[in-house]
Amino acid sequence: MWTDLGLDLESHDALLGILGQAYQDVYLSQKNRPRGMQYFDFVMSEVHGLRIKELLDAKRQGRPVVGAFCTFVPEEMVLAIDGVCVGLCAGAEFGFDEAERYVPRNTCSLIKSIFGFKLGKVCPYIESVDLLVGENTCDGKKKAYEILGTLVDCLYVMDLPQMKSDAGRALLKSEYTKFMAKIEEISGKEISLQNLRRGVQIANNKRKAAHRLNRLRAANPAPISGLDALLVNQVYFYDDPVRFTDSVNKICDELEDRIAENDGVFAPDTPRILISGCPMAVPNWKVPAIVEDSGAVIVGEESCVGERGTQNLVDVTADSLDGLLDSIVDRYCRIDCAIFTPNESRLDHVKQLVQQYKADGVIHYCLQFCQPYQMESGPVETALENSDIPVLRIDTDYSQEDVGQIRTRVEAFIERISAQS
Amino acid sequence: MWTDLGLDLESHDALLGILGQAYQDVYLSQKNRPRGMQYFDFVMSEVHGLRIKELLDAKRQGRPVVGAFCTFVPEEMVLAIDGVCVGLCAGAEFGFDEAERYVPRNTCSLIKSIFGFKLGKVCPYIESVDLLVGENTCDGKKKAYEILGTLVDCLYVMDLPQMKSDAGRALLKSEYTKFMAKIEEISGKEISLQNLRRGVQIANNKRKAAHRLNRLRAANPAPISGLDALLVNQVYFYDDPVRFTDSVNKICDELEDRIAENDGVFAPDTPRILISGCPMAVPNWKVPAIVEDSGAVIVGEESCVGERGTQNLVDVTADSLDGLLDSIVDRYCRIDCAIFTPNESRLDHVKQLVQQYKADGVIHYCLQFCQPYQMESGPVETALENSDIPVLRIDTDYSQEDVGQIRTRVEAFIERISAQS
Repeated sequence: MWTDLGLDLESHDALLGILGQAYQDVYLSQKNRPRGMQYFDFVMSEVHGLRIKELLDAKRQGRPVVGAFCTFVPEEMVLAIDGVCVGLCAGAEFGFDEAERYVPRNTCSLIKSIFGFKLGKVCPYIESVDLLVGENTCDGKKKAYEILGTLVDCLYVMDLPQMKSDAGRALLKSEYTKFMAKIEEISGKEISLQNLRRGVQIANNKRKAAHRLNRLRAANPAPISGLDALLVNQVYFYDDPVRFTDSVNKICDELEDRIAENDGVFAPDTPRILISGCPMAVPNWKVPAIVEDSGAVIVGEESCVGERGTQNLVDVTADSLDGLLDSIVDRYCRIDCAIFTPNESRLDHVKQLVQQYKADGVIHYCLQFCQPYQMESGPVETALENSDIPVLRIDTDYSQEDVGQIRTRVEAFIERISAQS
Repeated sequence: MWTDLGLDLESHDALLGILGQAYQDVYLSQKNRPRGMQYFDFVMSEVHGLRIKELLDAKRQGRPVVGAFCTFVPEEMVLAIDGVCVGLCAGAEFGFDEAERYVPRNTCSLIKSIFGFKLGKVCPYIESVDLLVGENTCDGKKKAYEILGTLVDCLYVMDLPQMKSDAGRALLKSEYTKFMAKIEEISGKEISLQNLRRGVQIANNKRKAAHRLNRLRAANPAPISGLDALLVNQVYFYDDPVRFTDSVNKICDELEDRIAENDGVFAPDTPRILISGCPMAVPNWKVPAIVEDSGAVIVGEESCVGERGTQNLVDVTADSLDGLLDSIVDRYCRIDCAIFTPNESRLDHVKQLVQQYKADGVIHYCLQFCQPYQMESGPVETALENSDIPVLRIDTDYSQEDVGQIRTRVEAFIERISAQS
């Protein structure tokens, strides 16, 4: 299978070896995990295995596989024609030397890793897709897709507005209309009110399961570790959506039992932290692992891989295709990504999540050279401090070089919030 | 006057002292300058003097003063109601410590200097304007305006598209329509086909004068230094447009005589360089000064402060206000700023300018942390190398720390292109 996909077998084996070890160290070493996480352990063990076979089987059945780098790609349209949508962001420092021949050194790790994985021929997902959807979010990605387009032959770039004005909304609707046509073209199937509504329902159910999991994390003691919850949010982008939804709901059943029994993954009154900022793609577990290894528990993620990505449902009540498209546009327009200006609702959302999850403090997590989130880190800090919420800003990348420094800062922060609470 | 504007007199004096010395060292020390540059020397000596008095006089006469940070702000609309449009980008490392309290350290010097000048209370322009127009070009500026909005009370942010699609063009038209209404609001005057056409003609004449100057720089020997031509392009943003146009045309008359007499500012066959990349705002003369001090002449600027900003005229033949607005949108849509994707016309433009000005090589100039131009620097380099055009990439900021390094690289580059030509 790997040879057919054109992977570099040696590099791919090396990558899987490192990933397997990291998963062992970070995940399997955790204590008192919910039994339901076994499903996610299995998914992760097969992320470069059975799942790829599933994708190839889907392709053979005429179901297109669409790869996306961003939560702005409306998965419901792919689901409408029974296609498969997979996330392609990568979270590992792999092939950066090669990547820096294509993009500037001052590029965030997430973008560099897209190039590193592609150039190193180690990502079976990017090699399996029928359509690779880029989107004009930040300058870094927008311009990087121009370069990526010289390396892949199925890139489709979706434009995005920068303001949520009437004209910005019209632009998004026009782009989603074009995307719908593209999906129809590659699948040879027509998108109708009925099948789009089905797609929306599948995506909504996935979001609802994520919301349910989020709500349960408000309990004290926390019933699930932040690492495990992050993994669920990461697998959100890879897995079959119906199976994923069932698996999350099963975990939630178990967590409800735990909460009823006052059972938690950490001791009661463990310092509680909300992470806010840049997305963490698999296997970027660096900062959460440090936080939970330092005696705190992460109770929420204000992130694209987290609540920024999953919040809000699409209203399915429209009785025309155009009406449903408007509802989809409405839902995506509410994502408070830092690419938008102004983006004050994000500040409100961070504060709301702190309250909802009874967090003792916020860690604002930024990838170096991610201008939108770096620019917002100051205003987020100010807004939180004005509400007497402790905040720690961490700017980092995918390397392991600053782990010691970050650990020291995180430990000091946890000490500070423990003393206050 | 300075006290009324709320300037910090001591810092302002210090800044003017440094500027005056830099101008003496970089400009007045040049040999064989066109006589017509005396006007620009005068303008520069009065850039924090008479010109400010003119702006304040204009305000007293009910003519609004509009400050802009970008060539995408349609000056013709301000001119239509007899207003004054002034550029506000700053090119000096001033107040960066203070600026970094508001924007991340990894922000380009141009943006930092906007904050440095504002926070240091040394920019009489920003303190004189009735309207400060920000625009959603790069992520850096887009997000910085959110923060700048907390420091000034007359900020107006104009949205821009990221693609030149139908929807992108519609967005720009909608934003220009809103801007027109804003200008009407602050001036109390209505914009009509007649007065907008007059505004367009004034702006077009300014562009035509710049085009005329550009064309004359194709001569060998070059009739004007790149430093002087850059100054003309910089004053383009500050001066009264009619007076500026006359002054540029006078220089062009003189340069035509020089060319007829085979007289140049440097010796014939001096190595000829095209600069391409980020804008250079006053007093950012660092790289051009190094280039021309190292024995080459700059014959063109593919830059917002240069031909990217001045190329293309607005078609004035429309017979309705809406038609003229469309023509304005058409003209601005042709600006090949790196914020757009794709932006291949910029690659063509750079190559065309090399041919037109008989350049021996290109220096691609980038401000550090300017993602759009840094991302394009690779593709520009590749396109030029594929056409056998030598290229040197310089990434720098407003500091003087790397002057020695840059000089060494520039000297080696000039040696290389001299050997080739």
